[in-house]
Amino acid sequence: MSRRGVLLVISGPSGVGKGTTIKRLFEIEDNLYFSVSATTRKPREGEIDGVHYSFKTKEQFEHDIETGEMLEHAVFSGNYYGTPKSAVEEKLLNGKDVILDIEIQGAKNVKRMLPEAVLVYILPPSIEELKKRLIGRNTEDEESLAKRLHTAYSELHEAPDMYDYFIVNDTVENAAVKIKDIIEGERCSKAAMQEVLKQILEEAENLA
Amino acid sequence: MSRRGVLLVISGPSGVGKGTTIKRLFEIEDNLYFSVSATTRKPREGEIDGVHYSFKTKEQFEHDIETGEMLEHAVFSGNYYGTPKSAVEEKLLNGKDVILDIEIQGAKNVKRMLPEAVLVYILPPSIEELKKRLIGRNTEDEESLAKRLHTAYSELHEAPDMYDYFIVNDTVENAAVKIKDIIEGERCSKAAMQEVLKQILEEAENLA
Repeated sequence: MSRRGVLLVISGPSGVGKGTTIKRLFEIEDNLYFSVSATTRKPREGEIDGVHYSFKTKEQFEHDIETGEMLEHAVFSGNYYGTPKSAVEEKLLNGKDVILDIEIQGAKNVKRMLPEAVLVYILPPSIEELKKRLIGRNTEDEESLAKRLHTAYSELHEAPDMYDYFIVNDTVENAAVKIKDIIEGERCSKAAMQEVLKQILEEAENLA
Repeated sequence: MSRRGVLLVISGPSGVGKGTTIKRLFEIEDNLYFSVSATTRKPREGEIDGVHYSFKTKEQFEHDIETGEMLEHAVFSGNYYGTPKSAVEEKLLNGKDVILDIEIQGAKNVKRMLPEAVLVYILPPSIEELKKRLIGRNTEDEESLAKRLHTAYSELHEAPDMYDYFIVNDTVENAAVKIKDIIEGERCSKAAMQEVLKQILEEAENLA
């Protein structure tokens, strides 16, 4: 009896420590996969197609958007970046759990195209603490700090309706363990267990 | 910041090993509570009101059903048994996770009255194995075995639409650990985190 993989989308405001938390998550939990993103930017030295990125022309990428093959996409510095649906689907079918690290608009698209997706939002312990973390980075001038905080505020208003789970990132370790707990619980969800259920119902039919 | 307790309803066909699994769950996880059931049967020697059961008259119990104070109830040997809503609500408000061990019709009522309830169904590894376990009990004559299996079949058809999580009881230890995982994940669910979300949104409002 085989279960379907769990598709976990992780979002959070910038400065919340999402990158570090996900890095720790991959250290404490095996059987997790990042899907390889597609992009239209040129490969850099040493980057391998299908490993670091799936490199596409602008025409191919736009075709994939039109046909629904991109679960979500965004444009940075004039290049497309996105998550191909078929690569994610293949892993899920093989019982592998897939992690997507994307912002709130992308998460909304993924949920629309794959309703089984489980959406996790990482919260700061407080807004004060988020401010401190952003200032601590020393990479923000005042204007960009204000802009990031403004984005965080409006995200925090949208997140409660959209996301399934909320994690307070008080420490990286706690936050990573909580995401691990969510994945382990979701491995028993109706969506993940649909094949197992089908098999036992068939067996019951044959014996009844 | 305080979270709301998780209300977990556990069901499964007779013979699946639900009782042993729940016993093991309480050994490996603290902070779990059974709610005290209400009943109209007479207290036995040594039974304390409010500890073993909340003892009620038939009139009191029927009044509680009418006012919606009974999350679910059933009749055995002419006596009412049920789960009082206020006792469960109080524990959830105080951040305590509550386990209810009830059959499928009761679970349906609980979900209707408290939509945040998380419904877990325990499956046998196979129908053959369920048969073996029922026969192994040596307490079943052929007629009652056939009746229990028939009930199990019809439950298995109803469960996939109703329940949120499905656990295969291959070993008691695995099944107990999986329920523990589900509880830990659900402690981060939207329902459990509503107060935390409210507080951080209020803080954001005040700073914006």
